[in-house]
Amino acid sequence: MHFDLETAIPVLTRTPRVVDALLRDLPDGWVSQNEGPDTWSPFDVVGHLVHGERTDWIPRVEHLLAHGEAVAFPPFDRFAQFEVSQGKTLAELLDTFAVERRKSLERLVELRLTPQDLARWGRHPEFGRVTLGQHLATWVAHDLDHVVQISRVMARQYSEAVGPWRKYLRVIE
Amino acid sequence: MHFDLETAIPVLTRTPRVVDALLRDLPDGWVSQNEGPDTWSPFDVVGHLVHGERTDWIPRVEHLLAHGEAVAFPPFDRFAQFEVSQGKTLAELLDTFAVERRKSLERLVELRLTPQDLARWGRHPEFGRVTLGQHLATWVAHDLDHVVQISRVMARQYSEAVGPWRKYLRVIE
Repeated sequence: MHFDLETAIPVLTRTPRVVDALLRDLPDGWVSQNEGPDTWSPFDVVGHLVHGERTDWIPRVEHLLAHGEAVAFPPFDRFAQFEVSQGKTLAELLDTFAVERRKSLERLVELRLTPQDLARWGRHPEFGRVTLGQHLATWVAHDLDHVVQISRVMARQYSEAVGPWRKYLRVIE
Repeated sequence: MHFDLETAIPVLTRTPRVVDALLRDLPDGWVSQNEGPDTWSPFDVVGHLVHGERTDWIPRVEHLLAHGEAVAFPPFDRFAQFEVSQGKTLAELLDTFAVERRKSLERLVELRLTPQDLARWGRHPEFGRVTLGQHLATWVAHDLDHVVQISRVMARQYSEAVGPWRKYLRVIE
């Protein structure tokens, strides 16, 4: 599928509702368990999504529009959600994510990006030249990737409980 | 995580809302594309979920309570959603799934299953002895597996569009 704002924005708009529907008010075991050492719980993922709104998605759009290829994006700290989440409840993080995402999308619409803008080059600190359109497509895929992750982490809590059905459930390896 | 009804029912209750939040009113490309030959689109998955409510989850609970190990479950036709979905819109399927799931959970609560019931054996046509608890845990994991699938199928529509970010997105192989 070709990237355009018209098909991408409806997905970005829905993600806070999806994550909210998955997690709010669930018994704690579903929310706080992870997949083992150095993996994230659903709670951690929501903190990561909040952090991305604040420091990655729209900030990098603005950075690229201001600097083009001349200045690389500041690196994104993929572990900073542990600070964002500190002392917060899941409900607070879900509310914050919804607010931050709404603000991000308001700004995105305000920028009135043209197809020419989407084709502009920026510079990624690790892999070099990237277009604004690639960055925005990544925002969408990244949302969906974390919906996958939350659902997978939850399903794997039942790896044993499902008994012999395990072999039919692709999500449980 | 150990299976019990108290932690399982909140997940089963949320699935129609999750799938609805992911898909309703999305541009058609997101809903009708699949991952290649013999794979399912998000639209197909919703039909499969409706079919499961009608013929698998609660019907097999009733079957097991009635027959124990004496009579194997009737096999589940994993392709019947193509009939269920015929001529339906996505919105109709989402509405039907929500209604059927509510009925399923009403019946589940009505059955007032005890821990002894959850340990009862039934017989699966393919892999033999299974407990009622394993069947119910599979219902939960199966929901989550299909949330994973819908999100993965959607994310992969942007496999090319994300450019070099591809290697960071676990969901896109």
